[in-house]
Amino acid sequence: MPPPSLLRPPLSLLLRRPQNLSPLRRVPSSIPSPLLVLPNRRHLSAAHLADPLVAAGVEEAVVGFVTGKRKATEVAHAVWRSIVRKGDTVVDATCGNGNDTFALLKMVSDETGRGRVYGMDIQDSAIDNTSSFLNMAVDTHEKELVKLFSICHSRMEDIVPKGSPVRLVAFNLGYLPGGDKTIITVPKTTELALQAASRIVSSGGLISVLVYIGHLGGRDELDIVESFASSLPVDTWVSCKFEMVNRPVAPVLVLLHKK
Amino acid sequence: MPPPSLLRPPLSLLLRRPQNLSPLRRVPSSIPSPLLVLPNRRHLSAAHLADPLVAAGVEEAVVGFVTGKRKATEVAHAVWRSIVRKGDTVVDATCGNGNDTFALLKMVSDETGRGRVYGMDIQDSAIDNTSSFLNMAVDTHEKELVKLFSICHSRMEDIVPKGSPVRLVAFNLGYLPGGDKTIITVPKTTELALQAASRIVSSGGLISVLVYIGHLGGRDELDIVESFASSLPVDTWVSCKFEMVNRPVAPVLVLLHKK
Repeated sequence: MPPPSLLRPPLSLLLRRPQNLSPLRRVPSSIPSPLLVLPNRRHLSAAHLADPLVAAGVEEAVVGFVTGKRKATEVAHAVWRSIVRKGDTVVDATCGNGNDTFALLKMVSDETGRGRVYGMDIQDSAIDNTSSFLNMAVDTHEKELVKLFSICHSRMEDIVPKGSPVRLVAFNLGYLPGGDKTIITVPKTTELALQAASRIVSSGGLISVLVYIGHLGGRDELDIVESFASSLPVDTWVSCKFEMVNRPVAPVLVLLHKK
Repeated sequence: MPPPSLLRPPLSLLLRRPQNLSPLRRVPSSIPSPLLVLPNRRHLSAAHLADPLVAAGVEEAVVGFVTGKRKATEVAHAVWRSIVRKGDTVVDATCGNGNDTFALLKMVSDETGRGRVYGMDIQDSAIDNTSSFLNMAVDTHEKELVKLFSICHSRMEDIVPKGSPVRLVAFNLGYLPGGDKTIITVPKTTELALQAASRIVSSGGLISVLVYIGHLGGRDELDIVESFASSLPVDTWVSCKFEMVNRPVAPVLVLLHKK
């Protein structure tokens, strides 16, 4: 089993410190190039490769969620696997430590090499961690299907090629497990990122948002996500929410399906 | 396909009219006997027998729910099927037109004849409908496994034999489809019924509550259910909720698992 920090999903990061109040300051005006593989073993181990999250089907994940044996992130992964196909283009809006990026890569990768995962994170260390994890976990051919960018998730439209139908945009909102907990995603850019995701996701696709609410500001961010989800027109979107009721700080899963 | 009224799940009933403000007035002081089969074809058709709700697995139901193709009641049925075993004792706290009673019977019935479904509804016509539906849908042997009572759901402990481990208690809260919409379940007895259910459900069992909120008083009832669910101790209960976010009157599914 990976250590607990590795089982926690990757979370998006946005510097809240005074020198970085605007995440866009950290993003160059031109579109950044995908990062090369940067060996970095922080928070990583070979046990990552046997991540049990990759395996659970929807029944196992949902019944496990209901009976307290599986986490919301496992429900999310299982639903993704039912919707994403080999060769798809998908987006990891919040790479964190790379668990979701890796899981998404395995969903889209096949011998045709058509699948693409566009991954981003405002925090350089998250991109480093993700790249290092992928370097350990997959071969060079598969790694090339992943394009990583150190960029705020609100700017995803700058890096996903126009005209590429996007099947899934995945968010993990909160702070980076094992990282600086003062660096968290914040409502304003999350709202912009959700709007961007709703523009690029294709018909039949999904926006998946796992909101961690146990930290300061977590509830505010959930409010923004719920407000956005409830504003989507019912004729073109299905917005649903899975949550624990007797664990007030348990993460909440919001799934937005474009009809 | 059954007519739309038959696809809507059965709902519990509690007279709100002045002469019936207290549901207990309608219940005899002694425990009523299970009703015999009462032929009644209101709201029933042979199409009931091919009810598609019986078939969906958890993956189909949950992914269908997320993509707008399946209803919350189908998610509930699919989760029940993952938890309920042949030979189990289960409770339909709100028989309505009998859809859930029938589905539950199919989950517990086998050649040993050990399974039992205890069904109740405060409204006589709902018990009539359920009994008639079962009379059409199952053979005499299976029908005998169902015990129907015209009683308020808050009194379920009066009819389920003491010492019988109960795997599932199912609620549909709202009004009877095709019936008098002024007759609805109300928060006070629903709260008592949930308390009773929590006492009789066994370890590893489930309380399933589908709350219809599109009618007057529906939101108040959801508040009571959520309040009850959130009050359950986290060391012995898992309380979770599935809901639509951009359809404010869509039913909400609350599942309470006893560890």
